[in-house]
Amino acid sequence: MRLRTPFILACALLLMGSTLRADEGMWMPQQIPELAGRLKAMGFKGNAKAFADLTGHPMGAVVSLGGCSASFVSPDGLIATNHHCVTGGLQFNSTPQRNLLRDGFLAKTREEEIPNAPGSRVMVTTSVTDVTDAITGDIDPASTDRQRYDIIERRVKERIAACEKGGLRCSVPSFFEGLKFYEIAQLEIRDVRLVYAPAEGIGVFGGETDNWRWPRHTGDWSFLRAYVGKDGKPAAFSKDNVPYRPKHWLRVSPEGVKPDDLVFVVGYPGRTQRHQTLLEVKETAEWTLPRAIRQAEEQLSIIDRLTRDNADLALKLAGRIQGLNNGLTNRKGILEGLVKGGSLAKKEVREKELAAWIAAEPSRRQKYGDVLPALSSLQSESEKTRERNAVLASLSTASSYLDAAQTLYRLSIERAKADIDRERGFQERDWNRIREGQERLQRSLDATADRALLSWAMGKAAMLPADQRIEPLDRTVGLRPGMRGADAEKAAESYLDRLYAGTKIGDKDFRIGLMDKSRAELEAGRDPFIALAAALEPLAESIREAGKDRAGAYARLRPRYMQAMLEKAGGLVAPDANSTLRVTYGQVKGVDAKDGLFYKPQTTLQGIVEKHTGEGEFNAPAYQLEAIKKFRAGKKTPYLDRALSDVPVNFLSTVDTTGGNSGSPTLDAKGELVGLLFDGTYESVASNYLFDSIKTRSIHVDSRYMLWNMTEVDGADNLLREMGIR
Amino acid sequence: MRLRTPFILACALLLMGSTLRADEGMWMPQQIPELAGRLKAMGFKGNAKAFADLTGHPMGAVVSLGGCSASFVSPDGLIATNHHCVTGGLQFNSTPQRNLLRDGFLAKTREEEIPNAPGSRVMVTTSVTDVTDAITGDIDPASTDRQRYDIIERRVKERIAACEKGGLRCSVPSFFEGLKFYEIAQLEIRDVRLVYAPAEGIGVFGGETDNWRWPRHTGDWSFLRAYVGKDGKPAAFSKDNVPYRPKHWLRVSPEGVKPDDLVFVVGYPGRTQRHQTLLEVKETAEWTLPRAIRQAEEQLSIIDRLTRDNADLALKLAGRIQGLNNGLTNRKGILEGLVKGGSLAKKEVREKELAAWIAAEPSRRQKYGDVLPALSSLQSESEKTRERNAVLASLSTASSYLDAAQTLYRLSIERAKADIDRERGFQERDWNRIREGQERLQRSLDATADRALLSWAMGKAAMLPADQRIEPLDRTVGLRPGMRGADAEKAAESYLDRLYAGTKIGDKDFRIGLMDKSRAELEAGRDPFIALAAALEPLAESIREAGKDRAGAYARLRPRYMQAMLEKAGGLVAPDANSTLRVTYGQVKGVDAKDGLFYKPQTTLQGIVEKHTGEGEFNAPAYQLEAIKKFRAGKKTPYLDRALSDVPVNFLSTVDTTGGNSGSPTLDAKGELVGLLFDGTYESVASNYLFDSIKTRSIHVDSRYMLWNMTEVDGADNLLREMGIR
Repeated sequence: MRLRTPFILACALLLMGSTLRADEGMWMPQQIPELAGRLKAMGFKGNAKAFADLTGHPMGAVVSLGGCSASFVSPDGLIATNHHCVTGGLQFNSTPQRNLLRDGFLAKTREEEIPNAPGSRVMVTTSVTDVTDAITGDIDPASTDRQRYDIIERRVKERIAACEKGGLRCSVPSFFEGLKFYEIAQLEIRDVRLVYAPAEGIGVFGGETDNWRWPRHTGDWSFLRAYVGKDGKPAAFSKDNVPYRPKHWLRVSPEGVKPDDLVFVVGYPGRTQRHQTLLEVKETAEWTLPRAIRQAEEQLSIIDRLTRDNADLALKLAGRIQGLNNGLTNRKGILEGLVKGGSLAKKEVREKELAAWIAAEPSRRQKYGDVLPALSSLQSESEKTRERNAVLASLSTASSYLDAAQTLYRLSIERAKADIDRERGFQERDWNRIREGQERLQRSLDATADRALLSWAMGKAAMLPADQRIEPLDRTVGLRPGMRGADAEKAAESYLDRLYAGTKIGDKDFRIGLMDKSRAELEAGRDPFIALAAALEPLAESIREAGKDRAGAYARLRPRYMQAMLEKAGGLVAPDANSTLRVTYGQVKGVDAKDGLFYKPQTTLQGIVEKHTGEGEFNAPAYQLEAIKKFRAGKKTPYLDRALSDVPVNFLSTVDTTGGNSGSPTLDAKGELVGLLFDGTYESVASNYLFDSIKTRSIHVDSRYMLWNMTEVDGADNLLREMGIR
Repeated sequence: MRLRTPFILACALLLMGSTLRADEGMWMPQQIPELAGRLKAMGFKGNAKAFADLTGHPMGAVVSLGGCSASFVSPDGLIATNHHCVTGGLQFNSTPQRNLLRDGFLAKTREEEIPNAPGSRVMVTTSVTDVTDAITGDIDPASTDRQRYDIIERRVKERIAACEKGGLRCSVPSFFEGLKFYEIAQLEIRDVRLVYAPAEGIGVFGGETDNWRWPRHTGDWSFLRAYVGKDGKPAAFSKDNVPYRPKHWLRVSPEGVKPDDLVFVVGYPGRTQRHQTLLEVKETAEWTLPRAIRQAEEQLSIIDRLTRDNADLALKLAGRIQGLNNGLTNRKGILEGLVKGGSLAKKEVREKELAAWIAAEPSRRQKYGDVLPALSSLQSESEKTRERNAVLASLSTASSYLDAAQTLYRLSIERAKADIDRERGFQERDWNRIREGQERLQRSLDATADRALLSWAMGKAAMLPADQRIEPLDRTVGLRPGMRGADAEKAAESYLDRLYAGTKIGDKDFRIGLMDKSRAELEAGRDPFIALAAALEPLAESIREAGKDRAGAYARLRPRYMQAMLEKAGGLVAPDANSTLRVTYGQVKGVDAKDGLFYKPQTTLQGIVEKHTGEGEFNAPAYQLEAIKKFRAGKKTPYLDRALSDVPVNFLSTVDTTGGNSGSPTLDAKGELVGLLFDGTYESVASNYLFDSIKTRSIHVDSRYMLWNMTEVDGADNLLREMGIR
């Protein structure tokens, strides 16, 4: 996948006691001791209880980068993660003269290490506490849905504020569809530096063509280092900061894995949707995904036209292009799995079974009888305005200018409130993040591209049906339902002329300066993008308000929906992924991926030579090819796999992972790092909705490929020594 | 590949006694008895000598369709071949109302069988006689190269004429680079009728996307019937003709194959080039193939533009599009194999070894010392004008109008000579074929497409360097070397306006009427295409004359080149393919096709469902999908493979095949038809130049898939009964 970006919604995974299949489940660390028997049967010799100790080994070594996972691999805060998790940092630090993305980067000394992109974080989870009672206990059953929402929201904010008093970063996510809430405290390291990333020809070898595919030969690793103040506490970047000394770090294994080996992946999977109702999955299959696929294709074709002869712009938009392509393939895969793969049909069977199970007993009818019909009617209600809401959202997805204006305008509104009353994302604790986001944004801003994409999104708005118009946009731009396409385009282009000619929001200092302005000051400034944001705000606000009502209803219904499913299933269950720390286990294994085709469990250097074309996505650096040639000519290496007669590159396993797991350490039964999780096969992606225990495979880079490259290709001896490899 | 069209040049395959690898070799039938030991070791229980008897079983059942192979499968002249071998016939018999290509065709009775395309032939080889002495014996060593060419050419023509007196069709091809000549006599059946072809969604399932690829799910079979006069002798089509009753026919096996089974393929492989010199292969890799790839891509893009919104034209050009695409992928695969796969490097090693072997002994230096240098200088000489010659040839490849005009104009010249003095291809024995070709052509003629492609080819001519101009074209069109592109285009378009406005050569009756005209009559008719052909003729003739000189030199040198290689290698050797009857053997086997990827040896119905998208190239007919559904719901079938738990569709084997083998029966150790050869994998195509015994795999359709479809999908009970299946 590039298992980086988390996806869409949130729900939970059932493992039914009787029909338990290996490998399904992104387990909360505290659940692992209960799986000790299963792990032992799979050959695990260690102590399953160790996983429950977040401050012990190996859990204390695993960190989140926000959207990616990573782990400490030396006592000096050296961090291993995926190459694609530092694309932003490499891009941010690149100049036309020195392209770190293309050529790679290696700091041979601490002094040469450079700050990663603004906003980079290393988050170390230090505690997970069940706070369900504190969040959802004692809510008057007679509360309206909106009251329920407000109560929960305020309690969550209060808990977070209290928790963060200790200097940690806290969150209170829900698990099992709101049935459980846990307070999670994290150490937040804010000085993160780039240490090492191989050249693009290694780290992104195969590019979009190979993304989500097997056989794979991607060197998807990079190294960062966490820095803290001299007092050992997290601090903003400073030359005087010192490397963070984690209590635990992972040994990078020079032995690697072989087929059928037990492996664990520990990390921060983003979102799975295994407990959506049938209607929700249907909407995903019939509306959300086809629409998202179409939109990504349209945007990519616009960007392709703009960047074809413009390498600078291509570099600026690299992240967006990668994200669109990645999401596109992912969504196509999910759609295929849902429709052709039959997951939707299975989902239908399961929901019928659930309904029958509820109907079978009066007590169940009493407890759960209203849940499915109520969820269904909420769903129908929301579908009425979904097209308009999606188009409104796409305006700011398309235009970073508008997105920035909306963020800053909302901030000015929220700032006027007491902190506890501010919307989440706009509280004081978020301001620094907002500022960093606006700084980071600068490297990818381009007025021409921004305008082209906003024009495209406005075209969609112009075509909305009369009963789902974005009225403030219509008024501002001069659009009307049923307008001829050419007229709408003329109106929009004339408006866009004024918009981009008049705005200063593309200027970083101007933009960041707006963070301190009041709403009145912003409005008085008359920047046309701020004016557009202000015009759209009442509609956006009313949509958010409707969302809160619905969220309150969900808070009332979904926990009972989940409870019914848990009760029906019995046994130990892993909750759906929600960007919190999880452990999954499985085996190194190939797969009968398609009729007539077997994906072998491992790839080797040989495949790099086979795939290398010398251009585009398959362009291994000459110095790597030279090293492979020497290896073939007989140069000895400890990273040779005797069974393969070659150095292993990537491998497949049956672990259960999703977006957000990127960069997660893959551990062997001894707890050593044998690889980094970085992707899943195309046939796996629909497992986010319904786990397919036959076809699902995750893709890892083998630690031996990392070490071989560090030794023979990139000369990263300093890091090898630091990791105790030589 | 669609193993239909033969490719480019001709040479011979060495099997070195000591390093013999299984499966390499397209053996002449008379060589098979010598391989009895090897076959026995592979599990063959039959009598290897039987293959040498062309009038016995199984050889008597195998026929050529000209460019395709086939076999009798019933005592009533029923013939099984590939679907893609009858594309022309289906296309020729289609109308806008009744699209046989799209919907398939089944004659439920003999009366419903319809004539295949004009010029269809079924050729049954009845004898193969060594005539080497008669052709190359007693040639005065002092003869010039041109004299040598003329002597051999005349002797060949005389032998053919004498042989055909008996009513058979004869040829005298050379084997082993002119070291051997064999006279081959064939029964030529001229009334060939369409009996059955599945719908395109079965017969071409996977289209160009899957062509040359695995896993494969193509139902690439069709059935024809051979008809003869009431006297049992070949005759032109007549309602009164009766089915031909072959002495031998193959039993279609309902048991099929399993992995590791020994299989034979008997058929008419077109051309292999395993004995080109290094310089020749280099020219292929560096000039011929890249040029052909570029040209095919350019032509396809022109055709794509023309046919995008024109379904009628798309049907007309279907054959050309398929041919271009097929050749394009094939050539890319060969190029990849030669350059990246390392075949060129291996070839270099082999040639150096040969040169060293020759240099090692005075007697060898004496016999062979001049051969490699002489071949090399012939090669350099021919490269001087290759670009001009290739562009001249591409004019008539691009334009069927010009091709027809040139053919008819040359015919008028040759007709004036005594038959024995006429060029081969223009003798009396060829006139009927020329006429049929002109008739068949009509269904694919389109003035707009023809002009667009001729304009493209003229553009190439306009850009030729000053020392390689096509002068008569320059004069006729008004082109000059170094002309500005726009001026050349203007001149060409103005000429093309006149050319297509003034010609009647697109009219079938007019065109065929020209066959009987003398050169003077043709010239007096002033058709502008004939005028163009006449203008080009002197240059074309001088190129042919130079070719004859070179062919004479080759006739002197290449047999000695071959002899040196044979002497160096020792052991039994199969000659290069040359469109004559051959036998190859191997095993049903998967392959480690790429690093990390294993091609399983068989595919099943499951894969059709997986690949089906409902549109384009992956559009299985609803009634087939319905039959698969019934099968999955438990409907019994004798064609179930228990090991696969499914009906097999296609399989891989290690047999050595090439273009022309399409439609060849695949026989098991009992001599029963277990499948039809129809393609090879992409990784195999470079084996035409240097056999890769590790990666080479041929692709077959399993007889059980044919029979299952005939039973459950197409209701071809009449044919099943005729074949004795039920």
